[in-house]
Amino acid sequence: SRSGFAEVIFCSGKSDKHMLEIFGRLYEDEGEVLGTRASEEQYELIRKEYPEAEYDPISRIIKIEKDNKKRVGKIAVCSAGTADIPVAEEAAQVAEYFGSNVERIYDVGVSGIHRLLGTMDRINGANCVVAVAGMEGALASVIGGLVDVPVIAVPTSVGYGANMNGLSALLTMINSCANGITVVNIDNGYGAGYVATQINRLGVRK
Amino acid sequence: SRSGFAEVIFCSGKSDKHMLEIFGRLYEDEGEVLGTRASEEQYELIRKEYPEAEYDPISRIIKIEKDNKKRVGKIAVCSAGTADIPVAEEAAQVAEYFGSNVERIYDVGVSGIHRLLGTMDRINGANCVVAVAGMEGALASVIGGLVDVPVIAVPTSVGYGANMNGLSALLTMINSCANGITVVNIDNGYGAGYVATQINRLGVRK
Amino acid sequence: SRSGFAEVIFCSGKSDKHMLEIFGRLYEDEGEVLGTRASEEQYELIRKEYPEAEYDPISRIIKIEKDNKKRVGKIAVCSAGTADIPVAEEAAQVAEYFGSNVERIYDVGVSGIHRLLGTMDRINGANCVVAVAGMEGALASVIGGLVDVPVIAVPTSVGYGANMNGLSALLTMINSCANGITVVNIDNGYGAGYVATQINRLGVRK
Amino acid sequence: SRSGFAEVIFCSGKSDKHMLEIFGRLYEDEGEVLGTRASEEQYELIRKEYPEAEYDPISRIIKIEKDNKKRVGKIAVCSAGTADIPVAEEAAQVAEYFGSNVERIYDVGVSGIHRLLGTMDRINGANCVVAVAGMEGALASVIGGLVDVPVIAVPTSVGYGANMNGLSALLTMINSCANGITVVNIDNGYGAGYVATQINRLGVRK
Amino acid sequence: SRSGFAEVIFCSGKSDKHMLEIFGRLYEDEGEVLGTRASEEQYELIRKEYPEAEYDPISRIIKIEKDNKKRVGKIAVCSAGTADIPVAEEAAQVAEYFGSNVERIYDVGVSGIHRLLGTMDRINGANCVVAVAGMEGALASVIGGLVDVPVIAVPTSVGYGANMNGLSALLTMINSCANGITVVNIDNGYGAGYVATQINRLGVRK
Amino acid sequence: SRSGFAEVIFCSGKSDKHMLEIFGRLYEDEGEVLGTRASEEQYELIRKEYPEAEYDPISRIIKIEKDNKKRVGKIAVCSAGTADIPVAEEAAQVAEYFGSNVERIYDVGVSGIHRLLGTMDRINGANCVVAVAGMEGALASVIGGLVDVPVIAVPTSVGYGANMNGLSALLTMINSCANGITVVNIDNGYGAGYVATQINRLGVRK
Amino acid sequence: SRSGFAEVIFCSGKSDKHMLEIFGRLYEDEGEVLGTRASEEQYELIRKEYPEAEYDPISRIIKIEKDNKKRVGKIAVCSAGTADIPVAEEAAQVAEYFGSNVERIYDVGVSGIHRLLGTMDRINGANCVVAVAGMEGALASVIGGLVDVPVIAVPTSVGYGANMNGLSALLTMINSCANGITVVNIDNGYGAGYVATQINRLGVRK
Amino acid sequence: SRSGFAEVIFCSGKSDKHMLEIFGRLYEDEGEVLGTRASEEQYELIRKEYPEAEYDPISRIIKIEKDNKKRVGKIAVCSAGTADIPVAEEAAQVAEYFGSNVERIYDVGVSGIHRLLGTMDRINGANCVVAVAGMEGALASVIGGLVDVPVIAVPTSVGYGANMNGLSALLTMINSCANGITVVNIDNGYGAGYVATQINRLGVRK
Ligand SMILES: Nc1ncnc2c1ncn2[C@@H]1O[C@H](COP(=O)(O)O)[C@@H](O)[C@H]1O
Ligand SMILES: Nc1ncnc2c1ncn2[C@@H]1O[C@H](COP(=O)(O)O)[C@@H](O)[C@H]1O
Ligand SMILES: Nc1ncnc2c1ncn2[C@@H]1O[C@H](COP(=O)(O)O)[C@@H](O)[C@H]1O
Ligand SMILES: Nc1ncnc2c1ncn2[C@@H]1O[C@H](COP(=O)(O)O)[C@@H](O)[C@H]1O
Ligand SMILES: [Mg+2]
Ligand SMILES: [Mg+2]
Ligand SMILES: [Mg+2]
Ligand SMILES: [Mg+2]
Ligand SMILES: [Mg+2]
Ligand SMILES: [Mg+2]
Ligand SMILES: [Mg+2]
Ligand SMILES: [Mg+2]
Repeated sequence: SRSGFAEVIFCSGKSDKHMLEIFGRLYEDEGEVLGTRASEEQYELIRKEYPEAEYDPISRIIKIEKDNKKRVGKIAVCSAGTADIPVAEEAAQVAEYFGSNVERIYDVGVSGIHRLLGTMDRINGANCVVAVAGMEGALASVIGGLVDVPVIAVPTSVGYGANMNGLSALLTMINSCANGITVVNIDNGYGAGYVATQINRLGVRK
Repeated sequence: SRSGFAEVIFCSGKSDKHMLEIFGRLYEDEGEVLGTRASEEQYELIRKEYPEAEYDPISRIIKIEKDNKKRVGKIAVCSAGTADIPVAEEAAQVAEYFGSNVERIYDVGVSGIHRLLGTMDRINGANCVVAVAGMEGALASVIGGLVDVPVIAVPTSVGYGANMNGLSALLTMINSCANGITVVNIDNGYGAGYVATQINRLGVRK
Repeated sequence: SRSGFAEVIFCSGKSDKHMLEIFGRLYEDEGEVLGTRASEEQYELIRKEYPEAEYDPISRIIKIEKDNKKRVGKIAVCSAGTADIPVAEEAAQVAEYFGSNVERIYDVGVSGIHRLLGTMDRINGANCVVAVAGMEGALASVIGGLVDVPVIAVPTSVGYGANMNGLSALLTMINSCANGITVVNIDNGYGAGYVATQINRLGVRK
Repeated sequence: SRSGFAEVIFCSGKSDKHMLEIFGRLYEDEGEVLGTRASEEQYELIRKEYPEAEYDPISRIIKIEKDNKKRVGKIAVCSAGTADIPVAEEAAQVAEYFGSNVERIYDVGVSGIHRLLGTMDRINGANCVVAVAGMEGALASVIGGLVDVPVIAVPTSVGYGANMNGLSALLTMINSCANGITVVNIDNGYGAGYVATQINRLGVRK
Repeated sequence: SRSGFAEVIFCSGKSDKHMLEIFGRLYEDEGEVLGTRASEEQYELIRKEYPEAEYDPISRIIKIEKDNKKRVGKIAVCSAGTADIPVAEEAAQVAEYFGSNVERIYDVGVSGIHRLLGTMDRINGANCVVAVAGMEGALASVIGGLVDVPVIAVPTSVGYGANMNGLSALLTMINSCANGITVVNIDNGYGAGYVATQINRLGVRK
Repeated sequence: SRSGFAEVIFCSGKSDKHMLEIFGRLYEDEGEVLGTRASEEQYELIRKEYPEAEYDPISRIIKIEKDNKKRVGKIAVCSAGTADIPVAEEAAQVAEYFGSNVERIYDVGVSGIHRLLGTMDRINGANCVVAVAGMEGALASVIGGLVDVPVIAVPTSVGYGANMNGLSALLTMINSCANGITVVNIDNGYGAGYVATQINRLGVRK
Repeated sequence: SRSGFAEVIFCSGKSDKHMLEIFGRLYEDEGEVLGTRASEEQYELIRKEYPEAEYDPISRIIKIEKDNKKRVGKIAVCSAGTADIPVAEEAAQVAEYFGSNVERIYDVGVSGIHRLLGTMDRINGANCVVAVAGMEGALASVIGGLVDVPVIAVPTSVGYGANMNGLSALLTMINSCANGITVVNIDNGYGAGYVATQINRLGVRK
Repeated sequence: SRSGFAEVIFCSGKSDKHMLEIFGRLYEDEGEVLGTRASEEQYELIRKEYPEAEYDPISRIIKIEKDNKKRVGKIAVCSAGTADIPVAEEAAQVAEYFGSNVERIYDVGVSGIHRLLGTMDRINGANCVVAVAGMEGALASVIGGLVDVPVIAVPTSVGYGANMNGLSALLTMINSCANGITVVNIDNGYGAGYVATQINRLGVRK
């Protein structure tokens, strides 16, 4: 496509008919296809028609991907708690689909700061970092202070009570006192993977 | 007093007449007196009558304190940015007035995590930590993961935009994933100094 | 563990596989294990493997606890309405698991103030009080005025309409005019039991 | 007037010209007149024309009242902190102006419950109670549990931080678990005095 | 009971065991019993033990009421839309159970003002009016301007979108510019029926 | 202009230099010019250069208008309280400037419904109605039920406490159960006058 | 009917009995009938009695419409994403039922601005435009800048996370800087179709 | 500095003493210095000591910048209304100070879409776009659909009423349906200029 990014399907809420049609059309156009927020039921539906489709119940991504795709550069995807992994995986797999190398660094919440610090050598060298966290959402600020590249902060709806379904983490991240932090919508792993790839490509271009 | 805590004046909004009267009465009763949220004007008013009164324009505390008061135990008061210092000082000075030793550890925001880590030897040994932070308010979580004593989190109204006058920091702290964190009202240095002293006394009793 | 507190499982949302694995690992490491927010289904799952596991449908705590554990000090856990008991029990059982003696004082909401006053002899002597209340959440303030030890306030999501799932009670408690009140997240009995134990231990140490 | 209640002027924001005109017209119509939320400046303006006008800087009420007005029944006006007194006085003076006997019971906040209990003999016998409180706003619930008559709860904007200018107290009161509580707008002493008088009159009619 | 009001059961969320126990105890104590927010399932449960129990699926009230109870005075219960009737009926039936005569005036929303005006002769003579409305909640203000007795406003969660589950109607009612309006929680028909009865009794006493 | 609507200046916040420049340019282009939200100071500034400029301190509109402008059709501008008049006048004068006849119907708040009903003959015949109200904002719903033409609802920031600076009135109006209501921003008299003129012109075209 | 608009049924939440009764009554009165927010179940219910009833699962409209109804003028109904189509169809079909010609222009979200611009010839000539959008809700502003007729903005609950069930889109639209925009409730296609028809009729009258 | 970004002073709220001290220190360290949110008074203070300091009253930036600094790459800074220019200039001047070429494209709000489209040739070629907008904040989405590079969205507090001091624009931008959008805090031109420079450098590196 013109932008260098294939269209991706947001599966949630799509009717079976619409789902099959759009999945087929994109597969035909691009030779590969990826959908986010797909349910098990939608996967069953698709794989009847396309047995080569794969489904990951964690990230809820359904896809048929070309073999031997070349990946460039490096994006670090960090996440705070195990419950944040589905969103982190959405970001990671979307970035990989768009051709980025991804380093996954999970379970590095700020209440165990030494664990995070112990992973800095894996974060360093990335052209950009995706920081995924719910609850108090402080991960982005700490990472922002440790790296010199842009940090894409992804608040998650993980938590309960006054987490207000992720709004609390979103506000935390928007108010970050660290330099280089920008924020996407709650649980929006896809959006983070997309913009991280845009930035990653700039870092490798030429 | 019965609770072992002298009454403290919340000066903001008090009329001159009321201010003088209550300041005088408490001074007489206790032989010392402390007021928070005092303006320069209120200080001028008081010191005409009580030249021995002291005023700190940072914490906005006005007081006459007994000489040679013994202090016990240890409370660490940590703060994130320089703009959070007024609230941190309110907490620290209130705790000292109530008889606690206070270790001040300022300017240790989470976007410079190594600065905070470099102060751990001064934080260790405290019976409780007061963590003061505005904006993203993540300081409490990081400290909570580093110490084994209770952390009193004080959100501040420092910041702008989506900080919503401190509500964002409050939510961050309430949603902390670290163990041992409890929260007081926005900018409530006094409340933190009070409860920190209650805990500190438990730690030294006997 | 280093902190003197065993790790606890937050069961809600964990997959069966993850649940079994982490339950087993902690049991092995510590010789005992406790999980909060466990469903009946998760209990069925666990007890197939570990018939010695116990489940309390009120607090939704699942655990295997060592025999003859010594408990120290005293924490009073007070709650307002009968619907608040699940959260109060989460706090109480967590505190007991961590080695605190707990005095339960339930159904002492502020709209029946004499009932609460009639229990003061059981509250007195505690090193700290946990006050659990939904709806108007006023219990913490009243108790705060009656005791000289820290009060951990736990707002609950009990109520309807403008209770906003507990946010109203949380705000009430954060704005308390009583001294010595600090607040944890809505329905966070676990967090209250944890910090209450930290404080209780300070009161008995030595 | 038809409703048995004279019109009252809401002075705040009124231009000088409008203020003088409406004050004069009501005085003429009723032989007496009362305005709420009046500034010192508005009082200066009025008393040039009407030297018999009185002004109370606490309640910010300006009025000319008929001599020898008969008052009936009894309303108890209770308030929590000293900063709530302006709103309590607006309620009390409005109720008196409308012909009710008022018992003032101030400084009976719930964090000092025994002070409140010590005033019950003065509250008893009232046809209705006005409960004025900011911050955590718990006063209404406690009183609601102690009396058998309607309690009009008036949240105030007193407090800071998460009090959200009175919204927190309003939510507390709306969620009260005590029977017989109804709520008016933040700082709306006038409205409470009005409806309390309606109820009081029902209690004395005949 | 001391207050002249029998205790009422809030059935929602009660376990079967608790439900049967409390229903039985109150029936025994008072010779009659009433529960609000009861489900069909709870009714089935109760009537196996107490075949004389009645259930109204609209108001979701379950009760056994004494024969020949005398009712006094008059309360008008007005509601805006048909979807508000369940809340209105909760108010009306609770008030009747507590011994008040109730005049029901439903479907008089403010967008059809002449229908409301056509019912004024039935509203007049009431000692107090209960105004039940969701969506824009304007009914209370209009009625408040038409009657001289207290108006208890009950916001409902009826509506969608920006009604925010009743918060919008609650705010409308709290901000009413009409005199004599006080407000209870969203959908709290019970609370309105209770306080309306308190007021009604004052109007008929002696 | 292409749209048939001259550009209007939003004066608030404009620097003196910018103000003079844009006022001059529009005057030159159109032979007339109108600015909203103008301060007295801005008027002083303008009239030094343009002594023919007029200023209305109520609506805060500054303008130089062509003589003998023809006005068409009819818009009814209704407002609830006297404090809502500035916004109503902004709407009315903007609509007149854009060439509409305007019928002003002020002080017809819903708590005095008969006053509103007494003006229906003046409202009837309008191609559209502008309903301006703060506090509970119920005016739009009542009018919506009485007329068959579109009602443009303008919430105002008039009120205090839980009016949340007009948000409460905005929500009331958005949730209106009457047909034919649409809403503009809080205090946006200009916007209402503009769209009312668009509608009015449709009604007279040809 | 007097207003020239037949009554429409809001089916959601209606009991079967109520549904059948009101459907039948309106059919009889008007010779046609339309219900919004109808479920498949409600359709099954209705068509047993009225086999001529039609149901559209997208808009969730159930109706029996007269043959050969004349339609006048033109309304353009534009929508941003495919998920907004149900709301757009509710608006479109309601407008058609009320006798307007409707031009549907779907899938013209602002992130693909050239698609929208390519449809301007179909939008031009409309007497009014309905702009339906969730998420960021910017469609109304862009269209408002392109047309000279009123734009009715309909925020939808489409989206996730910080869309707050449509409140975000509603605020976007209320704050639009384009002239001629007014807003209805979230997902209120019906309301938009109604007022668009009122405006459309003005444009064609005579 | 290690990060390749000199420290910048956030002047707002700093005391004169602190301001002079930090300004001097940074000037000495870096040979140049920049402060944001500086008042005229702070400028007067600084230039007494450092007459070479420059101040821009629009962006409120005070600085002493090295001569002949080389700038690389290209950032497009776009803004919607004239009132958004101060924030846009903060972003632009910070980016320039950090060594980026900046193309300014102001007054391209979405209600005049053709103006924006007419500037695309100046936007194209940028490594990243900063989109500054208040009120409905739709600018970022439209630009996001037109370019293939990251768009940093900056909501501003420009507007009134339901703009909620910029929160409305922030929510709009966070919910953007366009790809490649990330968001910083309300009015945070500095943060946008910083991260845009990080991205711009990636695009030119090598
Ligand atoms: N403090 C107050 N708060 C709320 N409403 C008031 C207050 N004082 C007076 N009012 C009401 O405002 C009306 C007068 O409003 P106005 O015509 O604006 O002076 C009175 O008749 C009362 O109904
Ligand atoms: N529908 C209701 N809404 C609010 N409070 C209620 C309702 N029904 C009963 N109550 C109150 O709840 C009390 C019983 O609560 P519980 O002990 O939880 O059953 C009663 O005495 C009433 O004060
Ligand atoms: N009171 C007002 N409220 C909202 N928008 C206004 C107002 N007055 C003028 N406007 C709009 O603001 C535009 C001028 O904005 P500006 O270029 O900032 O002066 C006008 O063309 C109108 O569209
Ligand atoms: N306008 C601004 N908005 C947000 N952060 C800023 C701004 N200007 C400077 N900063 C940040 O604030 C830091 C300096 O803060 P301070 O030490 O309080 O002067 C700088 O290093 C930047 O990271
Ligand atoms: Mg960084
Ligand atoms: Mg810890
Ligand atoms: Mg205490
Ligand atoms: Mg009572
Ligand atoms: Mg009345
Ligand atoms: Mg109508
Ligand atoms: Mg237009
Ligand atoms: Mg793009």
